[in-house]
Amino acid sequence: MQQQAQTFGYRLLKQDGAARLGEVVTPRGIVRTPAFMPVGTVATVKALTFDQVKQAGADIVLANTYHLMLRPGAERVARLGGLHNFMRWDGPILTDSGGFQVMSLSKIRKINEEGVRFASHIDGSRHLLTPERAVEIQCLLGSDIQMQLDECISLPAERKETERAMELSLRWAARAQRAFSDLAKPGQALFGIVQGGVDAELRQRSAEALVAMDLPGYAVGGLAVGEGQELMLRTLDGVLPHLPSHKPRYLMGVGTPSDLIKSVARGVDMFDCVMPTRNGRHGLAFTWNGKVNLRNARHADDPAPLDEQSSCPGARDYSRAYLHHLVRSGEYLGAMLLSWVNTTFYQELMAAMRLAIAEGRFNTWAEETLDRIERTN
Amino acid sequence: MQQQAQTFGYRLLKQDGAARLGEVVTPRGIVRTPAFMPVGTVATVKALTFDQVKQAGADIVLANTYHLMLRPGAERVARLGGLHNFMRWDGPILTDSGGFQVMSLSKIRKINEEGVRFASHIDGSRHLLTPERAVEIQCLLGSDIQMQLDECISLPAERKETERAMELSLRWAARAQRAFSDLAKPGQALFGIVQGGVDAELRQRSAEALVAMDLPGYAVGGLAVGEGQELMLRTLDGVLPHLPSHKPRYLMGVGTPSDLIKSVARGVDMFDCVMPTRNGRHGLAFTWNGKVNLRNARHADDPAPLDEQSSCPGARDYSRAYLHHLVRSGEYLGAMLLSWVNTTFYQELMAAMRLAIAEGRFNTWAEETLDRIERTN
Repeated sequence: MQQQAQTFGYRLLKQDGAARLGEVVTPRGIVRTPAFMPVGTVATVKALTFDQVKQAGADIVLANTYHLMLRPGAERVARLGGLHNFMRWDGPILTDSGGFQVMSLSKIRKINEEGVRFASHIDGSRHLLTPERAVEIQCLLGSDIQMQLDECISLPAERKETERAMELSLRWAARAQRAFSDLAKPGQALFGIVQGGVDAELRQRSAEALVAMDLPGYAVGGLAVGEGQELMLRTLDGVLPHLPSHKPRYLMGVGTPSDLIKSVARGVDMFDCVMPTRNGRHGLAFTWNGKVNLRNARHADDPAPLDEQSSCPGARDYSRAYLHHLVRSGEYLGAMLLSWVNTTFYQELMAAMRLAIAEGRFNTWAEETLDRIERTN
Repeated sequence: MQQQAQTFGYRLLKQDGAARLGEVVTPRGIVRTPAFMPVGTVATVKALTFDQVKQAGADIVLANTYHLMLRPGAERVARLGGLHNFMRWDGPILTDSGGFQVMSLSKIRKINEEGVRFASHIDGSRHLLTPERAVEIQCLLGSDIQMQLDECISLPAERKETERAMELSLRWAARAQRAFSDLAKPGQALFGIVQGGVDAELRQRSAEALVAMDLPGYAVGGLAVGEGQELMLRTLDGVLPHLPSHKPRYLMGVGTPSDLIKSVARGVDMFDCVMPTRNGRHGLAFTWNGKVNLRNARHADDPAPLDEQSSCPGARDYSRAYLHHLVRSGEYLGAMLLSWVNTTFYQELMAAMRLAIAEGRFNTWAEETLDRIERTN
């Protein structure tokens, strides 16, 4: 292992408009930003090996506290040497706190000041997740960047309800920070999560309160939940000026290639989304010439690969006809190849953005690229 | 591409008791025998890339006429440059004729002298498969070794019914041979299939009639359909003495590691079976120390790999605890890794048999090995 700093940090290397080129520094390695984190929900990026994820160009992956606390269990992962060892990924890992998953996956749940009580979507077993327990679990997993427990509400929501959840999330952030200072190892980081729905004033209050806590990084949560890109970007415009420029900004659960480009343009540094792998499993490929729905019958006789320039064998070496056949036949290899294609494309997209920022031509690049990659073929 | 013979042939290199070390020579490369052919039913060995299949040590793979004629269609595969090009496998391919699959998969079917009419299990469309069409399809696919269309009956069966199907399969073999001589390319081969259920006399008549046709290889079909290992081996003992020693013998759809060892001991050269991949998808791993059911809770905390000596990363690098977690979670990666483990194990098993025959210690090796690998852990 190479010599690494034992402290967590962020370096802003270059700014081009609001777009930022930087590095998140962790004891397990550097994350080049803007960065897209492939999602390894239950300790696997679906239908890929971590060797493929690394080869695709990812510096960091995400895993989920909610899923892993239920199966295989955080204490078990700790006994097995931590999540890095368990799933064979030696780079940095960011773990979500479970707040979002409790809301979206668990049918029976009850939130109060203490935390959230819920029934497992796997076996119905009852669990209590508190801000302190979320930190403890993430420490057991050995997460490099952990997220505070927050309350995610679904949109649209009443202002009062949005405010209540935002205030609760702030109190939970403070509890998480105390627990984290007791339990975490040097170089690990806890990020706060800005909440407040699509209300600019609530978002600002949330951001300012979190910034006052001097956390090592800040996420924007509760977006990309159906509000649409325009409202998401407007909300982002309201939040980002209130976040400090010397710390990383992470937009949770986002998004499409267009979402990524437009959010980077506004100064976001980190993203995660299941879209590349989920779409891959459903037969949709992302390429530099747009989206390709391989279920479509017109690919049945096409001997051309998805992208003969790609560094990904899935995009470069297999005909569209073969991919179409695999997808139509419901074969594992279809999901495997297209998840690989999309995971690679997302990393290529981030690399292209980093290069464009480095060369001071981000806006030109974005204009040229947006049209091309959002086409559906 | 290396210089290859444009003729098909078999070389018997060494005999150890009845066990045979040999080579099936094809224009696309040599198949070291005894050989196990991974099954790529619909032009993919499930949950593996063909690079992994090659890396596992396979010289030849199997694909299915029945499946491929229905989807993507033989004419389409031919337009796309043939099956090798379509699925990206440059070694020899053996294709089954579809007889067995029509029986096992198609609900509506009607057999007469002409052939078999059936409804597709995919979309209900009606098809006619004749001995001539089966040859034509396999030529369109570009198969290196094709199988004659035969009628597979389910066991147990009346002698009269067994005899009728065997006689029909013989007439179909003659029609297949005529069609093949019109359509096939130099170096391609057509194998006949010995039928006759578990009746020694019918099996002998079938074998003798096929041998009289001087086909380049012979398969034993209609076994491993529930009759049990003992009856299968007894039937094999009745058939093999009637097959010529200078041609390859292929036992279709077999089998467990024990089946393979005991059949090689009797002089079988080639095998195929879905067992390594199907069991892999169901959480069962084959290893040199026996079978391991990774669904079993006692693997949940086990940091040991399946086999740290294995050449397969799936067996060597991942803990049983992680594999257990993937299997229990129904994750793609579980099926991917265990299919890889088992496909590699089957190739290692064949390589060990070839070495034992070469060194004239097959029986000793078999005795030492059988107990060990048939354990369930």
